[in-house]
Amino acid sequence: MPTNNKPDKPAARYAYEGLDRLFHERARLSILTSLMAHPQGLVFNELKDLCALTDGNLSRQLTQLAEASLVEVWKGTKNNRPQTLVRMTEPGKKKFLEYIAQLEAVVNDAIAGEKATVNESLRPT
Amino acid sequence: MPTNNKPDKPAARYAYEGLDRLFHERARLSILTSLMAHPQGLVFNELKDLCALTDGNLSRQLTQLAEASLVEVWKGTKNNRPQTLVRMTEPGKKKFLEYIAQLEAVVNDAIAGEKATVNESLRPT
Repeated sequence: MPTNNKPDKPAARYAYEGLDRLFHERARLSILTSLMAHPQGLVFNELKDLCALTDGNLSRQLTQLAEASLVEVWKGTKNNRPQTLVRMTEPGKKKFLEYIAQLEAVVNDAIAGEKATVNESLRPT
Repeated sequence: MPTNNKPDKPAARYAYEGLDRLFHERARLSILTSLMAHPQGLVFNELKDLCALTDGNLSRQLTQLAEASLVEVWKGTKNNRPQTLVRMTEPGKKKFLEYIAQLEAVVNDAIAGEKATVNESLRPT
């Protein structure tokens, strides 16, 4: 995906272009991680509680994630009450794991940095 | 830190309240990880290249990070040219590592979810 205003130099060691806002925004990151942990899906209220989101916010985020084909939203009944079931799609799962790999790189870079020796800074990398 | 509109229930297993936007936004995450990897600091142009940011964007982000006392900004000269040196502060380093620990929890949750057995979903957790 081309980005505007950002020169894509090979020197951009810490640019993390893979941190797409679609995954990276906290509410959506919370929803997607919950769904990854529950492969058969979660009903709306379970998801709402796991993520500490309001009804309105969860609805908006799910619309956005469904439009991007990352999640599926199913209407049905459970215990005689109308329910909404949400599941990850297979492409959604794949793309999310790519995002998670990038997040893991950030964590490793930050931890490696903590251990970096003092003298190697100020030198252009 | 109290949050509005978000019930802080113990059930909110995936709420990740520690993912403060101050650290989590991609440009700032990029800047802070670069600085962690270079404990003696980086001059403005090095940081700009490592993060693939524009002058304007980097300046704005640094102002925000300095106002939050996460980074120090020093004016001086290097090779007879005026330069700006940026370094993490000690409290900034500590807070950023707390954020990184939370990010690591997300990564671990997502990876654990990938391996989760199919039958344990749909049950409220």
